Amino acid sequence: MKKKNVSGNMLIAQSGGPSMVINRSLVGAVLEAKKHKCIRRIYGALHGIKGILEENFTDLGRESNTNLKKIAATPSSALGTVRKKPTQSECADIFNILNKYGVRYFFYIGGNDSAETAHIINQEAKKKNYELRCFHIPKTIDNDLRENDHTPGFGSAAKFVACALMGDNLDNAALPGVKIDIIMGRHAGFLTASAALARKFKDDGPHLIYLPERPFDMNTFVSDVKKVYSKYGRCLIAVSEGIADKTGTAIATKYIKEVDAHGNAQLSGSGALGDLIAAEIKRRTDIKRVRADTFGYLQRSFPGVVSAVDSLEASVVGMEAVRCAVSGDVDGSIAIRRKKGEKYAVYYKRVPLKNVAKETRAMPSNFINKEGNNVTKAFINYVSPLVGKLPEIGRINPFFLAKKLY
Amino acid sequence: MKKKNVSGNMLIAQSGGPSMVINRSLVGAVLEAKKHKCIRRIYGALHGIKGILEENFTDLGRESNTNLKKIAATPSSALGTVRKKPTQSECADIFNILNKYGVRYFFYIGGNDSAETAHIINQEAKKKNYELRCFHIPKTIDNDLRENDHTPGFGSAAKFVACALMGDNLDNAALPGVKIDIIMGRHAGFLTASAALARKFKDDGPHLIYLPERPFDMNTFVSDVKKVYSKYGRCLIAVSEGIADKTGTAIATKYIKEVDAHGNAQLSGSGALGDLIAAEIKRRTDIKRVRADTFGYLQRSFPGVVSAVDSLEASVVGMEAVRCAVSGDVDGSIAIRRKKGEKYAVYYKRVPLKNVAKETRAMPSNFINKEGNNVTKAFINYVSPLVGKLPEIGRINPFFLAKKLY
Repeated sequence: MKKKNVSGNMLIAQSGGPSMVINRSLVGAVLEAKKHKCIRRIYGALHGIKGILEENFTDLGRESNTNLKKIAATPSSALGTVRKKPTQSECADIFNILNKYGVRYFFYIGGNDSAETAHIINQEAKKKNYELRCFHIPKTIDNDLRENDHTPGFGSAAKFVACALMGDNLDNAALPGVKIDIIMGRHAGFLTASAALARKFKDDGPHLIYLPERPFDMNTFVSDVKKVYSKYGRCLIAVSEGIADKTGTAIATKYIKEVDAHGNAQLSGSGALGDLIAAEIKRRTDIKRVRADTFGYLQRSFPGVVSAVDSLEASVVGMEAVRCAVSGDVDGSIAIRRKKGEKYAVYYKRVPLKNVAKETRAMPSNFINKEGNNVTKAFINYVSPLVGKLPEIGRINPFFLAKKLY
Repeated sequence: MKKKNVSGNMLIAQSGGPSMVINRSLVGAVLEAKKHKCIRRIYGALHGIKGILEENFTDLGRESNTNLKKIAATPSSALGTVRKKPTQSECADIFNILNKYGVRYFFYIGGNDSAETAHIINQEAKKKNYELRCFHIPKTIDNDLRENDHTPGFGSAAKFVACALMGDNLDNAALPGVKIDIIMGRHAGFLTASAALARKFKDDGPHLIYLPERPFDMNTFVSDVKKVYSKYGRCLIAVSEGIADKTGTAIATKYIKEVDAHGNAQLSGSGALGDLIAAEIKRRTDIKRVRADTFGYLQRSFPGVVSAVDSLEASVVGMEAVRCAVSGDVDGSIAIRRKKGEKYAVYYKRVPLKNVAKETRAMPSNFINKEGNNVTKAFINYVSPLVGKLPEIGRINPFFLAKKLY
């Protein structure tokens, strides 16, 4: 039997890695919830399910709308976040706590692991015959959630990466050499692939892009780099942190293992993959200037570099989740789907929690070139509207003087 | 004898590391030069003195003003740059080339090494009794030029660092642990110190700041980190890449030397210092989550993150150099000086080339706290107007619920 307006409290929490727009989803959900009488109190749990288990709750209903708007525009998870999968007994505890606090509406913002958590809690409630409207709100800069055309957080992270590569391309042109940029994304290459948006002029980098979706072979790689370098006198390369060889072993892991044999455990550090690749180029070519940077956390929390589309969609998925929850005895995740047609437009669809949980998706084949060292036009068409306008770049039109070499 | 209007061609070039606003100085000089009839042709040398020696010149006078404006707003050195000190014989060659191309106005944009180069070329011209108006236009994100209150390029790089730390502080608060950010500046700590601008709320990081101006001691450091961690449950640390021990040996170098003994030359890589420090914290404390990022080139060429004051001043130093050059038989560097008074204002002063050449300056003592792990209010007052407005940040005002722990 469907009860349209089950009355009770709402609990919302954030999970997984922070993003530029995860607070848009939080505030979108809170502002929408305020409109519905069936939602009595609006609680936020600090640091995801850790906060639920410890009963660390804040009353978000008491935040002023002015402050909520500031929070919405702030990067990173305002409620705090956590990387934790609950055990079966913790799931039972969580359910008991929701029950104790009169929670009938539960929203968990995060990636596939968060969807999995929401799914388990929802099953626990069903088992106890407790009416819980349980929703997952998508967030991941990796863009790897199934059922979604793309996910909130990705567009802004992609904008950061595109801007970073635009700048680094200009830097590399000014002071030529080989430059390697290591970009986030352990299993899905979307974020690394977005580096391609940095190109404006024909000789602009990134000249090569390596993704976890294709096996990485050091010999082919070095040969690719040599080719580009002999053509342009420089080479800018975007590399996913998750690149792996044909057996599926991450290149970074391989390296760490080798070095561990020397007893240097500290090498599992932040710059290891970039340093390894740079060292191989130096060893196998006569190119002198080879540098590597690893972008790290800047990609997911740099304030001010936000995609307008991403920002808007992140708000809407939060609002949509609440609208769905008050519309009947339902649960699920809000997926973003792209409408067919020339102009970019999306719609939002409730999908089963289990469809988004656990497994993730990778880049489709038609987004990657045959050689596995670049993206296709299809990917550029896919990603451009998600990132939006980039800074304008100018360059000198050289009017070369005849040399007076006498 | 002063000739007010020596007629001849102008040559301009860029040198050293790129910056966000070095093209403002280039375009400022070119647009100003176009106003003066005594300057006949405006040549740009590609990649600094390397381009002069190879006679790789472009006619900048033929660039449209529309394109020049685009170039001005573009990060990195539009003419290309170089890290090269000329030998004595190359200086003679350079002088001969200037002579051959009828160059009477020479402008070199860069740091102290570029001032040194300009100084030597100027001396060569004097020796030959050739009237050359030779100017250095200041640029360095390190902010380490003598005679200057601050240098073009610094304010924008400082803005990037401040934004990065704002984001990373929110990230660290959401997912607590120890986070180390390695920031550029081998001998001067200004850029690392600017991380302090990221603080808004009382518990905001960076909680600790380590600069090359104070000896770095690993024991004191770990004890500092423990103190902060026990107070806030987290610790965000800004570390200059140039930190050194009390003997003046760079911590990064010490590490590389140790590792070299194992034959792993690749460890001189991008993340080495951050990884070393993170490993020491892990080894000496029971803190589990310790991460390090090294910002790398993003600090000097990320498009869109620019200080308006820095941008303006970079244009003006370029214009001022040309104005000075056409005003009489003079040479020098254009220094930025701050006017006394409540409100931020500057004036520009021609100073001798040799005063800016060779040696650099470090942070004054009153900008660093007694413990050597933070900056003072005096530094914040100094740096704030150079960086300008930062993104607004909001946070939840927690209205904690009483726990129902039954």
